[in-house]
Amino acid sequence: MRITVLAGGVGAARFLRGLKAAAPRADITVIGNTGDDITLFGLRICPDLDTVMYTLGGGIDEAQGWGRAADTQTVLSELAAYGAEPGWFSLGDRDIATHLHRTSLLGAGMPLSEVTALLCRRWQPGVRLLPMSDDPVETHVVLAGDGQTIHFQEWWVRLHAQTPATGFVISGVERATPAPGVIEAITNADVVLLPPSNPVVSVGPILAVPGVAAAVRAKTVVGVSPIIGGAPVRGMADKCLAAIGVPTSAAAVGAHYGPDLLNGWLVAEEDAGADRDPGLAGVAVRAVPLLMSDPQAAAAIASAALNLARELTP
Amino acid sequence: MRITVLAGGVGAARFLRGLKAAAPRADITVIGNTGDDITLFGLRICPDLDTVMYTLGGGIDEAQGWGRAADTQTVLSELAAYGAEPGWFSLGDRDIATHLHRTSLLGAGMPLSEVTALLCRRWQPGVRLLPMSDDPVETHVVLAGDGQTIHFQEWWVRLHAQTPATGFVISGVERATPAPGVIEAITNADVVLLPPSNPVVSVGPILAVPGVAAAVRAKTVVGVSPIIGGAPVRGMADKCLAAIGVPTSAAAVGAHYGPDLLNGWLVAEEDAGADRDPGLAGVAVRAVPLLMSDPQAAAAIASAALNLARELTP
Repeated sequence: MRITVLAGGVGAARFLRGLKAAAPRADITVIGNTGDDITLFGLRICPDLDTVMYTLGGGIDEAQGWGRAADTQTVLSELAAYGAEPGWFSLGDRDIATHLHRTSLLGAGMPLSEVTALLCRRWQPGVRLLPMSDDPVETHVVLAGDGQTIHFQEWWVRLHAQTPATGFVISGVERATPAPGVIEAITNADVVLLPPSNPVVSVGPILAVPGVAAAVRAKTVVGVSPIIGGAPVRGMADKCLAAIGVPTSAAAVGAHYGPDLLNGWLVAEEDAGADRDPGLAGVAVRAVPLLMSDPQAAAAIASAALNLARELTP
Repeated sequence: MRITVLAGGVGAARFLRGLKAAAPRADITVIGNTGDDITLFGLRICPDLDTVMYTLGGGIDEAQGWGRAADTQTVLSELAAYGAEPGWFSLGDRDIATHLHRTSLLGAGMPLSEVTALLCRRWQPGVRLLPMSDDPVETHVVLAGDGQTIHFQEWWVRLHAQTPATGFVISGVERATPAPGVIEAITNADVVLLPPSNPVVSVGPILAVPGVAAAVRAKTVVGVSPIIGGAPVRGMADKCLAAIGVPTSAAAVGAHYGPDLLNGWLVAEEDAGADRDPGLAGVAVRAVPLLMSDPQAAAAIASAALNLARELTP
């Protein structure tokens, strides 16, 4: 079975770990969001790609959900002693080595997709991990009030998404082309899965890469709601949804993807009523336990998604 | 008193610590060799500038002579796990932060002299530290046999200078201009000192920057021999001298600088006979204890150099 997953960070990584357990013989391609990418201290940082790579490769800081296990902050504290900006982004020493190696390879002219494949030779994530594009794309946030735009990471990490936003600009996406293998992985997939990632700033930028949404729409697509009982399970997806005028509900997020894209939509049991939402007309909605409290729970959710996909496959 | 010093790495740094103790009210400018600089893992590394900065700023690994005290190698071991090349250069985590900050500032267009000044705001070395040039200059080694050239660091660190060399190419130096303040610091100095640095690959590249040697020749110049009793005190200066056909002796190194440049030459007591070398005709040679076994010894050597300079100043 060929499965292609459009992935953000922590939620996607945990879902993917469940998916590997639920479908151990499947051929899984992960198309990772690079809109969160940022250059800090001269290092090119790809948080979502790394979270997937570390989680599936056994190197993740489990408690934190991102970054390397048992990491130290020697380099960061030295950078702070130099007054290097910015002071608001946390980076461990082990993690910095990844960024340093990636930055060096990118600087030598290697495209991000090849760099990612090279990094994965160490981590052996058990999936093929592709960035959505080799072209730099950065999600910027339009702040309420003066309309100033700042990098998504500054809004998310420094401002904790507490400064109201009125929208997002996926800078560079209109000129970006899908990375080699992305369109093929979607076209050749038996099913495309949307894990419980942030629909606005994680899955949204992937779908915004020219050609990706059209390729996805042609497939059997099953999504997993990142909203349970009116609140994001993790992160601050509610702030992102509010910025684009979408209510924080499983039904509204499903409707945001829309029946054109989604064939199946997994919601939590408390959101079972979502199937009555007119925005989900024609979408097969199933209510199952959606809390990824441990790898077994994640595997059960992935199984439910695959079962729904099989049911919907012509 | 205005003192300008042309400095390599460890020997120069220890001499400078002695000089600061011997002349606490002097206005000291250090012109640092950048021919040893190298880009590894995408990081711009300036070993000589950093050794001076760390030593005078209290951050040096005393036992090793270079790098940061109490440093760890987390980033390097992670880079090795990725198979990042080269594997032969050692870099501590604290040290990497310096290179990362420098590389980032250089990448933003700041010249090396300004970057160095910025780094020194943290370290407060008590001297003005200038790179010999803001232009990239790299010392390459011509290997015996096939005449292949490799970066000095590869010869020095990876090959331990055990592969015979037939010369050095100071790549880029003919097009380099002295960094802002370099010529002025020499011209305005009461004395120019050559510390016991490697004459070939440390002081040599500085003197090779167009305009520097002429400015130095116009001044009262006192040098300290890096050779004691026919052997380098530290490092492998003998291998460098052999490559350019200069015997490993205090007299021969003095003659290599030559009477056009040198006014005074401090040699070790066992090399007192150096004053009979015809290559040192017209140079005031003084024999004093030259082993910088501790900061007090270094201060005594610096005092002897200053005394000789005063004696020779018109």
